[in-house]
Amino acid sequence: MNPIVIEKTNQIPAILAEQDLDLWLVFVRETSAAGDPVLPLIYGETGLTWQSALLYTSQGEKIAILGRFEVDTAEKIGAFDQVIPYDEDIRPILLEELQRISPRRIAVNYSQDDVLADGLTHGLFLTLQHILDSTPFAERLVSAQEVISALRGRKSKTEVERIKAAIASTMAIFDQAFTELTPGQSEIEIAQRMQAEVERRGLGYAWPKQNNPAVNTGPDSPVGHNAPTDLVIEPGHLLHFDFGVKKAGYCADIQRMVYFLEPGQTEAPELVRQGFETVVRAIQAAFEVIRPGVPGIEVDRAARTVVTEAGFPEYKYATGHQLGRLAHDGGALLGPAWARYGKTPFMPVEAGQVYTLEPGLMVPGFGYIGIEEDILVTYDGSQYLVPPQTELILK
Amino acid sequence: MNPIVIEKTNQIPAILAEQDLDLWLVFVRETSAAGDPVLPLIYGETGLTWQSALLYTSQGEKIAILGRFEVDTAEKIGAFDQVIPYDEDIRPILLEELQRISPRRIAVNYSQDDVLADGLTHGLFLTLQHILDSTPFAERLVSAQEVISALRGRKSKTEVERIKAAIASTMAIFDQAFTELTPGQSEIEIAQRMQAEVERRGLGYAWPKQNNPAVNTGPDSPVGHNAPTDLVIEPGHLLHFDFGVKKAGYCADIQRMVYFLEPGQTEAPELVRQGFETVVRAIQAAFEVIRPGVPGIEVDRAARTVVTEAGFPEYKYATGHQLGRLAHDGGALLGPAWARYGKTPFMPVEAGQVYTLEPGLMVPGFGYIGIEEDILVTYDGSQYLVPPQTELILK
Repeated sequence: MNPIVIEKTNQIPAILAEQDLDLWLVFVRETSAAGDPVLPLIYGETGLTWQSALLYTSQGEKIAILGRFEVDTAEKIGAFDQVIPYDEDIRPILLEELQRISPRRIAVNYSQDDVLADGLTHGLFLTLQHILDSTPFAERLVSAQEVISALRGRKSKTEVERIKAAIASTMAIFDQAFTELTPGQSEIEIAQRMQAEVERRGLGYAWPKQNNPAVNTGPDSPVGHNAPTDLVIEPGHLLHFDFGVKKAGYCADIQRMVYFLEPGQTEAPELVRQGFETVVRAIQAAFEVIRPGVPGIEVDRAARTVVTEAGFPEYKYATGHQLGRLAHDGGALLGPAWARYGKTPFMPVEAGQVYTLEPGLMVPGFGYIGIEEDILVTYDGSQYLVPPQTELILK
Repeated sequence: MNPIVIEKTNQIPAILAEQDLDLWLVFVRETSAAGDPVLPLIYGETGLTWQSALLYTSQGEKIAILGRFEVDTAEKIGAFDQVIPYDEDIRPILLEELQRISPRRIAVNYSQDDVLADGLTHGLFLTLQHILDSTPFAERLVSAQEVISALRGRKSKTEVERIKAAIASTMAIFDQAFTELTPGQSEIEIAQRMQAEVERRGLGYAWPKQNNPAVNTGPDSPVGHNAPTDLVIEPGHLLHFDFGVKKAGYCADIQRMVYFLEPGQTEAPELVRQGFETVVRAIQAAFEVIRPGVPGIEVDRAARTVVTEAGFPEYKYATGHQLGRLAHDGGALLGPAWARYGKTPFMPVEAGQVYTLEPGLMVPGFGYIGIEEDILVTYDGSQYLVPPQTELILK
């Protein structure tokens, strides 16, 4: 038994009731080749092979219809009231269950805005429509985006514990890395030392190892989703890290900043300090605005305005994203109203969600400053899951 | 540079021309969360983050449109003539390219029958339709199923070499396992020894480790996609293996049979020999029928008829599937006309495809007999990629 699957499937009936939905239908096939990203939450890491339907009603029923040879596996998960096998064609059994439940609307997994709620492929959608042809249900399919967004976003107790554990491991590796930094080391060297520690501890990566950690030293290092280069630390460089481990299926995502003093300096230059303080103030501004009910765009605006009003160029990405099984965990986004973000910046923040706050800016001649904190939204505000960086680390 | 990506993208123009298609459009986003299964063939293992479009024309143009920060990565792949970045919205650039190319039909990645050609999610399909709204292209979308099926199925030189290497490693581990078998060992013990060898050799698994190898001893072992149990080998048992490693991204998938003599026996009992010979004959019958142009259903029928005419119960699965990057590599299937297989049994076999042949049957009182060979379809027939098992291994 997987505690996460039990906790998450127990959240479903209330979420459906809130959204006035009778039925959520998760329709999948051959998930080892192409899986629906919601499955790890509600079915675990096991695959489903033939066309399979997982049905959840607002009344709390949990039914799996699947190929006969996968019945034992499904029953052992312990998250279904009923596991119904078939041998050749799912259609008659699925229609029978739908007729019995008689839902007014059937939520299925497609979404234009949230890749994690968009697990139903277009071909499989056509197959489902074909199965429902000449029944009243064909006209009743609606997007399950808000179901998945709520389910994925509202972390259960075990999920928050696991994210905290991933953050603790990430910070332990950061702290060790900070003590070892000296001018002359290359970005690649620094990254490899941190990765050796990730592996020594038996941890995974919150995003691909290729750029985890991202390490950027000085003004010439390419910032973005780039792999570390052989640029070396020099006195007068800002050193930027973006790093997160995955532990027991859950992720951390944290950015930290170091400055290397030039001979004779006892603090960072004025412009660097200004940049650092601006990013810290931007994070604090977002932290003060975020609470249940506020749309992400307002949180983004609070941070973004601090950066632009301080005279730094506007960052070209969202202030924060959700964090969970993935570093980018989908759903509501703390972002601006840009086309590529769709509706996600307009979705209201909910209690139980975990977000990053990660504004950034370029300090010409010194390097990139980005700090990233992880926070949990509470019923009346939010709390930091990691002690925030408020002082530039000087080396 | 990834030799597979170069070889495979070079196959595209001819495939499009054959199918009278001007343009194949691969439209994806955030592939680290939910990827299109065709990407490893045409883009490699790197992810794409924002909405991204890969365009291939029958004239041989290869164009990538993607978020600015991923330009360097895309260019390094070496498989595009042109990499076009965008900052906020893919729409204007994508429309401009479509207007220039002016395709009569645009193949996109959806398929009811082939999960590996169904990488476009329904939400992203709606987004694409929205992008094309009020252009003539909105009405020109067609399924790329046959493009992907041809591309994935027709193995390039490097692909066939890699499959052969995976088969060689699989057989080496089999051969070692056979020498160590004795009554009293459990299925789990045997599987763990083989897995230790997989890991010692730095290999991967062609399907999840949980049931790779599948090991079934005697008449009471559950056969199917089940993990090995603590049932132990006894004299008079048939021992069945289903095993395959993955090496350099490509898979093997092989079943082998052993019989444990009872005291005084010098050969397997009549019924066991009959069962074994029936499966061998069924494979040989399929092998003789398969050649380019023959639909999979005919190959399936050849093998299936041998089993049922010998008086054994009909197996409840397809005689064979394609093999490649995945153990179940999609496309044309050597299967019967059952609803869950859709149209795949009616697709013609093509030269360059690699298939399994794996009929099976239950011998009451002794256990399951399944043999699985891997074959390459040639221009006028086929060839075994592994020496086929024609004698029952006696222990």
